[in-house]
Amino acid sequence: MNIKPPYLLFIGDAVDPLSIKMARSAADWCPELCVGEFTLPGCIVTTGLSGMCIAQASQLGAKSFVLGFANSGGTLDPAWIPSILEALDTGLDIVSGLHDRLTDVEAIFSKARLLNRQLIDIRHPNEKFRTGTGTKRSGKRILTVGTDCSVGKMYTSLSLKEAMLRRNISCTFRATGQCGILISGSGVAIDCVVSDFISGAVESLAPDNQQKHWDIIEGQGSLSHPAFAGVSLGLLHGAQPDALVICHAFGRDHMRGLPHYTLPSLERTIELNESAAKLTNQNAKVVGVSVNSSALNEQEALQSCAELSERLGLPVIDPFRHDMNVLLDNFL
Amino acid sequence: MNIKPPYLLFIGDAVDPLSIKMARSAADWCPELCVGEFTLPGCIVTTGLSGMCIAQASQLGAKSFVLGFANSGGTLDPAWIPSILEALDTGLDIVSGLHDRLTDVEAIFSKARLLNRQLIDIRHPNEKFRTGTGTKRSGKRILTVGTDCSVGKMYTSLSLKEAMLRRNISCTFRATGQCGILISGSGVAIDCVVSDFISGAVESLAPDNQQKHWDIIEGQGSLSHPAFAGVSLGLLHGAQPDALVICHAFGRDHMRGLPHYTLPSLERTIELNESAAKLTNQNAKVVGVSVNSSALNEQEALQSCAELSERLGLPVIDPFRHDMNVLLDNFL
Repeated sequence: MNIKPPYLLFIGDAVDPLSIKMARSAADWCPELCVGEFTLPGCIVTTGLSGMCIAQASQLGAKSFVLGFANSGGTLDPAWIPSILEALDTGLDIVSGLHDRLTDVEAIFSKARLLNRQLIDIRHPNEKFRTGTGTKRSGKRILTVGTDCSVGKMYTSLSLKEAMLRRNISCTFRATGQCGILISGSGVAIDCVVSDFISGAVESLAPDNQQKHWDIIEGQGSLSHPAFAGVSLGLLHGAQPDALVICHAFGRDHMRGLPHYTLPSLERTIELNESAAKLTNQNAKVVGVSVNSSALNEQEALQSCAELSERLGLPVIDPFRHDMNVLLDNFL
Repeated sequence: MNIKPPYLLFIGDAVDPLSIKMARSAADWCPELCVGEFTLPGCIVTTGLSGMCIAQASQLGAKSFVLGFANSGGTLDPAWIPSILEALDTGLDIVSGLHDRLTDVEAIFSKARLLNRQLIDIRHPNEKFRTGTGTKRSGKRILTVGTDCSVGKMYTSLSLKEAMLRRNISCTFRATGQCGILISGSGVAIDCVVSDFISGAVESLAPDNQQKHWDIIEGQGSLSHPAFAGVSLGLLHGAQPDALVICHAFGRDHMRGLPHYTLPSLERTIELNESAAKLTNQNAKVVGVSVNSSALNEQEALQSCAELSERLGLPVIDPFRHDMNVLLDNFL
């Protein structure tokens, strides 16, 4: 994959902040690779970056037009096509994290070919994977897992990486979703891999490494989510993690998208993940909990983390508010 | 999918009986749909059906040329192409259960189009699936699960169907692998579904049904297999089984393909599956064990089943040797 920076982040006429997850991830985690955002009339959300038209972005050196969307189903809205064609005409490659492929839209495909631009569907793996082997690999691995989807596994993984790098620990972030791939420039969108190859794909994503090197593997889904637990289990087995961090969002009262399913307890989540992880790594251990405490104020957040930490006997922090070193100290 | 019987089973120059699983499955379970087998020089295995050339098969009315292979990796051997082209010339459709697609071989693709024959890659789903919902569905469901891959889940499922039909119980076999699809004419090869949609695909495979109807869902892999547990878990959650049958092969001492992984105990397999199944069906329960006892003689098989039954407190039978009704009586 050869995603050329800098990026112009396209957020269309979005009105829901959650619907522009791709754009927000890039603006939060690699703003130095972004020139700004491009909106259509009606848009009421923002990534916080400067707004500009495609021509302006091009003058500022933009090389890629990034579809900033992460809608349910991953569909490509026909209303976006004129902007995509304009970006191609202006000299930009197109980057998408949708299930729908850019190459399947005839107008986009033919213009890109004519102008020799790249269409990069980062969610669709190009590699041919093998089935997993469960063979022990050298080096260390930490995996973020969760009580649910969208509880901060990518943000926690990237925060772990930053904290480790500050301590001069050799480490690599291994992206397993489209936003992480955009931020880090490589990875495998594990939810798009053919199911026979889930664990094999993760084995190849985080291969043998130096003894003291840490791969920080981004988790997906939850072992307690009726739709996605299979993905989470295959990812867990392929990762062979030495350390697990449980991610959780305070105030969430049901599984994402499924109002009839309650959230598992933290205790149950720890037990499920440690038990399943031991199949491919007998020493797998939960080393801490990372919460999204945005539903609480500063004081409530501190108190909730302290109570949970006492209850579980593990460090509990919000990576946006608290010091990640508390968690690192528990396993390094 | 419109697989036209009767079939000519193509087993090439195979020397390993396990490598012709597709052909053997058809010969064992739907011989009335097969005219015979077609081999190449060097072949030392057989399905037990009459050998014949393609022209003879055509004279006997054969409509489909079935690639009888199930090799690791699911690759299409170039040595088979001349026979496939001859079958097309002789008027037959081609049916394959490999990962490699018939349509990706230019010579096969162009001849089939020229002659207006069907190329049916039964392992590759045509449907567009949705992610799972975990919503309770009407009707009853039984799922076969296993200590390992290739321990008899399809054979057990088909035996359950026969035994149920003999007792006039309304039931449907739901195939989740290429052999089951060939035998029953429909189904979804779950190991080829994009991982985001595993449980959603099973939900659509075994939809709402009449209160007393049983869907008999073919399981895949094992929750204890490092390569395939993700598939097994997604299948389990999507199936929402009321009843589970554990499948096991006597004499197996390591996980298929992985000499460094020992087999889980029957007790562990029961606990793992019941515990995971309860996420989408609180009443899920293991109702019996189906063994492949071919490594033992008649007397040893009976004794081993009796001992295991005593130990587990569950009926234990080999569907090829013993009466399936013992198992049915435990849950009907």
